Amino acid sequence: MAGTDSSQPSATVRGAPTIILVEPQLGENIGMAARAMLNCGLTDLRLVRPRDGWPNKKAVATAAGADPVIDSVRLYPRTEDAIADLTLVYAMTARPRGMVKDVVSPEDAAVEMRRRGAAGERVGVLFGGESCGLDNDDVALADAIITVPLNPAFSSLNLAQAVFVTGYLWSRLGDPLSPSQEIPAKETVAASKQELIGLFEHLERELDAGGFFHVAPKRAIMSRNLRNMLERARLNAQEVRTLRGVIATLSGHRIPPGSKGKKKP
Amino acid sequence: MAGTDSSQPSATVRGAPTIILVEPQLGENIGMAARAMLNCGLTDLRLVRPRDGWPNKKAVATAAGADPVIDSVRLYPRTEDAIADLTLVYAMTARPRGMVKDVVSPEDAAVEMRRRGAAGERVGVLFGGESCGLDNDDVALADAIITVPLNPAFSSLNLAQAVFVTGYLWSRLGDPLSPSQEIPAKETVAASKQELIGLFEHLERELDAGGFFHVAPKRAIMSRNLRNMLERARLNAQEVRTLRGVIATLSGHRIPPGSKGKKKP
Repeated sequence: MAGTDSSQPSATVRGAPTIILVEPQLGENIGMAARAMLNCGLTDLRLVRPRDGWPNKKAVATAAGADPVIDSVRLYPRTEDAIADLTLVYAMTARPRGMVKDVVSPEDAAVEMRRRGAAGERVGVLFGGESCGLDNDDVALADAIITVPLNPAFSSLNLAQAVFVTGYLWSRLGDPLSPSQEIPAKETVAASKQELIGLFEHLERELDAGGFFHVAPKRAIMSRNLRNMLERARLNAQEVRTLRGVIATLSGHRIPPGSKGKKKP
Repeated sequence: MAGTDSSQPSATVRGAPTIILVEPQLGENIGMAARAMLNCGLTDLRLVRPRDGWPNKKAVATAAGADPVIDSVRLYPRTEDAIADLTLVYAMTARPRGMVKDVVSPEDAAVEMRRRGAAGERVGVLFGGESCGLDNDDVALADAIITVPLNPAFSSLNLAQAVFVTGYLWSRLGDPLSPSQEIPAKETVAASKQELIGLFEHLERELDAGGFFHVAPKRAIMSRNLRNMLERARLNAQEVRTLRGVIATLSGHRIPPGSKGKKKP
């Protein structure tokens, strides 16, 4: 999530999609949808004629603490009322509807919702109830259909999963950097080459003593392979010392003085 | 999903990630995870010590017909056993672990799993139980950590959602337009986890014999650190054999019979 939004997770993220559940049946699914929403920084949940009424204890339980979403749920008698203030509305459905209406992927919908949301528009997605989904009149209210591309032989998606994929893909577009870049630098500093070479030579010395390189012409290539393996591990200084302790232990020798390795018995 | 794979949804899609749930608690969550898997064309589900045993009626109910997944579930006593035949394993966790291990986004993990899977490798993702997640020893077995970038104030993701996002992002890369499939395979195949674990245990056995872990409470953390270093080196099978030869040489012991390591004098 971008910028200051991520520091205000319990407030509505500006431009975040509104989620509208039409005739949801199980409180458990409403709660799980609320949890999925807050996971992704979405907080505006609207219910149209929930079967078991509202509030719903089971929803609170499965929301697992997504109180900002649960506490601000709004109820509507009709889908039309629930989307009245929105300017871009998608209908999520797996079934073809025989309507002349765009069908987009959740990724494409996320891009468009970001774009329009950033321009100050209010956007949202309609989801139908667990057993029948949205009816055609509800779908007709939407600007376009979102169909999640899934295994065609098993494409029935749990309601909360459908909400999650919508929120997740939207939230990812707010990420100014790839997440792997955002992860703080490793606390540890890579070993110096001097430390690494000390490790290599220590290992090779002990392997020579043990007769490991008994085919002399292969010594160069074998030690090069070992060095490559150790290079790839991107060891830090502490780890180099640990490995020197390992070598010393295995070979039954103490680390030579001056090597700065930790002594191991 | 690309090509013929999508027409054979109940068969394992070639290269599809294996999902490993370690100590899952609620049958409902196992079932929902199975459903999410099959939605995305994944069928190989493995359970390590499920709290309520297996089979589990609640899992069947919430799987909502994902029988190909439920029927082929395999049980394992230890995480090591569950990942033995895999060559690339991620650990999904939201918590920082203080380990020197790569942390990647689910998108990056999906790309890498596609690439390695296309090259014939077997890939998988570890998920912890609902309340505590993975323990550090399980995380240490993984090549890298996946952290789903979520609302930092509400980042606890439902187990099935975590499985779904993994499968969904993977399945989306099977789109024939995606370039990721065209990336050439690596020349060498990564060592299996079984081979790596054999290496770890061989090393630890010899270090025990040499008194390396003389401060008993530190044994767990020290062996975990060593395992992390070796994981990071992304060893292939030949390199594992070489390192077992190194350990055998240094410790003055022969490799135990049946380990398939090369004998070194």
